[in-house]
Amino acid sequence: MSDLKQEILAMVKDDLAAIEVALEKNLNPYFDLVSKVASHVLFSGGKRLRPLLIVLSMRLCGYKGNYDKTYSIIFEYLHAATLLHDDLVDDAALRRGKPVAHSIWGNSVAILVGDFLLARSLSISAGTGNMKVIEAVAQITENMSQGEVHQLMLKGALDISEEEYMEVIKRKTAVLFQGACRISAIITDAPKEKEKALSDYGYNLGLAFQMVDDLLDYTSDTKVLGKEVGADLKEGKLTLPVIYSLKAADMKDRNRMENIIKNEDFSVNDFETLVELLKKYKGISYTQKMAAEHISKAKEALSIFEPSETKEILEKVADYALNRKT
Amino acid sequence: MSDLKQEILAMVKDDLAAIEVALEKNLNPYFDLVSKVASHVLFSGGKRLRPLLIVLSMRLCGYKGNYDKTYSIIFEYLHAATLLHDDLVDDAALRRGKPVAHSIWGNSVAILVGDFLLARSLSISAGTGNMKVIEAVAQITENMSQGEVHQLMLKGALDISEEEYMEVIKRKTAVLFQGACRISAIITDAPKEKEKALSDYGYNLGLAFQMVDDLLDYTSDTKVLGKEVGADLKEGKLTLPVIYSLKAADMKDRNRMENIIKNEDFSVNDFETLVELLKKYKGISYTQKMAAEHISKAKEALSIFEPSETKEILEKVADYALNRKT
Repeated sequence: MSDLKQEILAMVKDDLAAIEVALEKNLNPYFDLVSKVASHVLFSGGKRLRPLLIVLSMRLCGYKGNYDKTYSIIFEYLHAATLLHDDLVDDAALRRGKPVAHSIWGNSVAILVGDFLLARSLSISAGTGNMKVIEAVAQITENMSQGEVHQLMLKGALDISEEEYMEVIKRKTAVLFQGACRISAIITDAPKEKEKALSDYGYNLGLAFQMVDDLLDYTSDTKVLGKEVGADLKEGKLTLPVIYSLKAADMKDRNRMENIIKNEDFSVNDFETLVELLKKYKGISYTQKMAAEHISKAKEALSIFEPSETKEILEKVADYALNRKT
Repeated sequence: MSDLKQEILAMVKDDLAAIEVALEKNLNPYFDLVSKVASHVLFSGGKRLRPLLIVLSMRLCGYKGNYDKTYSIIFEYLHAATLLHDDLVDDAALRRGKPVAHSIWGNSVAILVGDFLLARSLSISAGTGNMKVIEAVAQITENMSQGEVHQLMLKGALDISEEEYMEVIKRKTAVLFQGACRISAIITDAPKEKEKALSDYGYNLGLAFQMVDDLLDYTSDTKVLGKEVGADLKEGKLTLPVIYSLKAADMKDRNRMENIIKNEDFSVNDFETLVELLKKYKGISYTQKMAAEHISKAKEALSIFEPSETKEILEKVADYALNRKT
């Protein structure tokens, strides 16, 4: 584990423990099967980044009550629901080193437990009695499903623009991070400029987080990552490292890349060749640079807040999002 | 078309037209594909029973405003979302005489557009600013997904009790009908006894509606029904006509029935034999009787309301739910 990750974990130990308790306590299913499937995806070493963002953002705005954990799990249930459905959509095999839920319990159960978690997330939102939270959660859910549809529409296409890529990751990832942070400001009745600052922090963090996710699919290895490296490529999902490199490559290399991309059964050798070309045409370094820029923006957005331990953690979280290896 | 259906349609013509407009206007997707898939399931000759229940229940409680149509589409979007997911779960081929969405656009698109409709339903709920509506919609969604999980857990089992069957149809169908009617009373600030009456009406109507659905799977024919007759049986889904007959049959006939049920590729002859046995052991007539009892209860529940055209329509809707052929 990196030093940075250990540092953060030490600072949020109690929060994480309380989040785990809340995640377990609020699941509330009628059937063991629902609980088993939901737990498989909920308690499998997730980073708890989304709930943590809420707890920390609320604290940054001066919140001292006990409801931050409840608000925080809304977004983790929502996240877990989308994981169940996305693994199906992507036909993934592994998630965090474990077989995906639909490979164990079948597609039908995965769909329905995903629906349950989605509904549970909205029930708990409703239970808070806070209309702004409910509206945000519903709109985030809408956005995420459409982001996934957009990604699906672009599947197999070789001429995706950087703008289209940004549109996809905005909807499928950044709006949730943004929503989580923004809502925290709203709940705590923070002034408009703090709401804007946290919204900007979350949005840029979300973009960078997804970019790094897409990078790791080329630069990590399966054992470290807990899921198959090259999975995006196998699914015909083009991400920024490839999009950038395809555009920058000369005709011969572009043809080589396109042939590898179009071949669903590419070999380990093919994959290594592709990664070499992503390095040669700077798709890897460009994506790193873009992610770093968004992380800078995220941290800059926090500048209006007074120095505090909470602010420090949020800054460290941003650094970690950029430098993480899994 | 039956006389009763024509009578009802004549009485709610303007409401149905307004519901269609609202369904179209509020869909609001970013992508044509989402619109296309959602429209495929939304505008394919659905009965609009759920939105109609809301418009009529609100009117019965004296509502005269313009928001009834908006409230009503929340439940139709929710219904459409579950249809998209259920057709996948059931691996259905036809819905209302048309190929199901996932057979045209693939499983992934069907899952994601279902999620979108679910989220849209909750966004519009949130937009009403009415916490009770939001809570009800979220809880109904939870219940429905768990009802479907329950049904899935019972799949293939031959020893399902009538109680288990009732549990399933309560969650997967009756709670939505109940919720729609109950919410209408709440929105219009109706007194508690009216809320209870409409809740009972919706609940019993929902149970009967599902029982008749399950009956039609044995007594209708594919062309009239718009979906494959015997589909429940093919999916290993035992419903009341079978559950009752299995229990009532002598050992020899029970064995015959079980052999047909266990054989996924049963012939037309096998199916006819089974239907004969369902008649012989009164599973068909028992289900009809139970549905009729719930329809009586539904109509009785309305007795506290003064006579009115709206009340008359709701009574006719109950009769139609029992006597419909599709």
